[in-house]
Amino acid sequence: MELTLDSPLDMHLHLRDGDMLKLTAPLSSDFAGAVIMPNLVPPVTTPDMMLAYAERIRAALDGAAFTPYMSLFFTALDEKALQAAISTPGFFGFKLYPAGITTNSEGGVSNLAEAERTLKLMEEMGIPLLVHGESHGFVMDREQEFLSVYRHLATAYPKLRISMEHITTAAAVELLDEFPNLCATVTLQHLLITLDDVAGGMLQPHLFCKPIAKRPADREALLQAALNGHPRLMFGSDSAPHPRCKKEACGCAAGVFTAPVALPKLAELFTTHGAADKLQGFISGNACRLYGLKPASKQVTLCDTPMQVPARYRSYGQEVVPMYAGQTLPWSIKN
Amino acid sequence: MELTLDSPLDMHLHLRDGDMLKLTAPLSSDFAGAVIMPNLVPPVTTPDMMLAYAERIRAALDGAAFTPYMSLFFTALDEKALQAAISTPGFFGFKLYPAGITTNSEGGVSNLAEAERTLKLMEEMGIPLLVHGESHGFVMDREQEFLSVYRHLATAYPKLRISMEHITTAAAVELLDEFPNLCATVTLQHLLITLDDVAGGMLQPHLFCKPIAKRPADREALLQAALNGHPRLMFGSDSAPHPRCKKEACGCAAGVFTAPVALPKLAELFTTHGAADKLQGFISGNACRLYGLKPASKQVTLCDTPMQVPARYRSYGQEVVPMYAGQTLPWSIKN
Repeated sequence: MELTLDSPLDMHLHLRDGDMLKLTAPLSSDFAGAVIMPNLVPPVTTPDMMLAYAERIRAALDGAAFTPYMSLFFTALDEKALQAAISTPGFFGFKLYPAGITTNSEGGVSNLAEAERTLKLMEEMGIPLLVHGESHGFVMDREQEFLSVYRHLATAYPKLRISMEHITTAAAVELLDEFPNLCATVTLQHLLITLDDVAGGMLQPHLFCKPIAKRPADREALLQAALNGHPRLMFGSDSAPHPRCKKEACGCAAGVFTAPVALPKLAELFTTHGAADKLQGFISGNACRLYGLKPASKQVTLCDTPMQVPARYRSYGQEVVPMYAGQTLPWSIKN
Repeated sequence: MELTLDSPLDMHLHLRDGDMLKLTAPLSSDFAGAVIMPNLVPPVTTPDMMLAYAERIRAALDGAAFTPYMSLFFTALDEKALQAAISTPGFFGFKLYPAGITTNSEGGVSNLAEAERTLKLMEEMGIPLLVHGESHGFVMDREQEFLSVYRHLATAYPKLRISMEHITTAAAVELLDEFPNLCATVTLQHLLITLDDVAGGMLQPHLFCKPIAKRPADREALLQAALNGHPRLMFGSDSAPHPRCKKEACGCAAGVFTAPVALPKLAELFTTHGAADKLQGFISGNACRLYGLKPASKQVTLCDTPMQVPARYRSYGQEVVPMYAGQTLPWSIKN
């Protein structure tokens, strides 16, 4: 059995920098392209930083056919600065982080009121806003508590393209249905796991991420939305590599490294549920339509030949552990 | 400021075996005595195994004034076997585990109906039943889902002394109020932390335990019950050491090692909340009254001289990390 996807896109990807970028960029380039997150240290806040980062990514890709859609770390900006952003080649949109909510987000927004003028300009200029939507509340409630902010944004800026990044709850799916100007990404792991997989048996640091995996009913709502071809739900892996020594340690960093297994697992998931015809929209079509993207043509064929996932990937002095490390998956990418 | 406690008891303690027992027994003997959990490999199921384990504990204590109240791993037993248990010196009660619910509990009860005859006999013979009360459901719901079992036990065996071990939810506190024949233990960590402390920031394997820490409202209900001197709530640390290499690893084992810091932290907690007068009942009085215990007299004086908690404890080739490792606590045990 085979499944061919046209220009699959990962709408939310972390590639990191330096040696980690060199290791992970080639492992994340099965896709035709991806929206690259800007939460480096320091965060990517200016067009110049973005251009330099895109150049480092291209170098790390070593010729792979893969388009980095670059995002800038949201800060309050004036029209001139926004104009500079959209005239920079490769720019895709702004990523808004509540201050301190996840890896390297300390410089994020602490008071949304101060960003209102920038958001209005973004709406007028057609610049997408990608949002890490979590409050600073109890870990299982953070996304749900943030939904009122999404509601405010969707109401106050009806023409702003607002993406709820990596949604994890049934409540977020309901909100997505309620506001046609909202769209959302969902990760591989949130379609597959719940908090039980992270902390229900032994503690599994490699499945620990932000937002944390939620309840079975939440996973089910996300999965059904994806399998039913929700027109405003897109795949965004949030593949987030950390060095193994930082994952298997006291004070484990948040993030699941899924890039190398994402397409095979999605092929398995959608075919198992009889929804193979919905995968193209989820993996590319919805994003192209919603954002007006025209990715370079790249066909990726998946087949039901097993894939042996390495226990870890190592090079450039870096070591990362992928999701399903050491396991055999039923689908693989056809070479 | 000083606070003197008469014969403090830890009503739920793991000492492990072998070299780990040699390391942890002296670190757990600030108390006058403790109820010792039987989930070794294999579990302590017979009076002979129990006597031998008690002897190993005494040897490891190296003369410390500390009484091990021994528990047996619950299995369906006849009257003769129960009689043999209660005639064995040092025997305290049976610990019931749902099969596979926590560390070394694979041989636990999978069908409560098969245990009914044994429970009836225990009721008649006055043998306490200590229960690890969790279902096999979603990790945040396991205790609440088990409450119907407690309700059944409390109704079907009105004279059985049933202890809900290491309760973690407001719902369990409510059930405790509802049935005067139920009692409960609560750990140090569940009075202090929520899931946020385990997984709200970086992942903290040393705070990962079963039952998992719950919501802020749950912690608050447990804390208020303890501070208000609930007459059927007892301290049970569930101090559960694991080798550091098993805690700081992929697949971290569940358990928090609190024994060396329990009394200083409880002194801090109760005095900070103006409830110093309620600590004696929580730490000893309630248990003595509910179980008719008459522990050997041992006065432990706590004082507000800071305690420097070691980053780890090492000996006999074993290494364990305590709660508050490397931190300074405001109270300590007066030598």
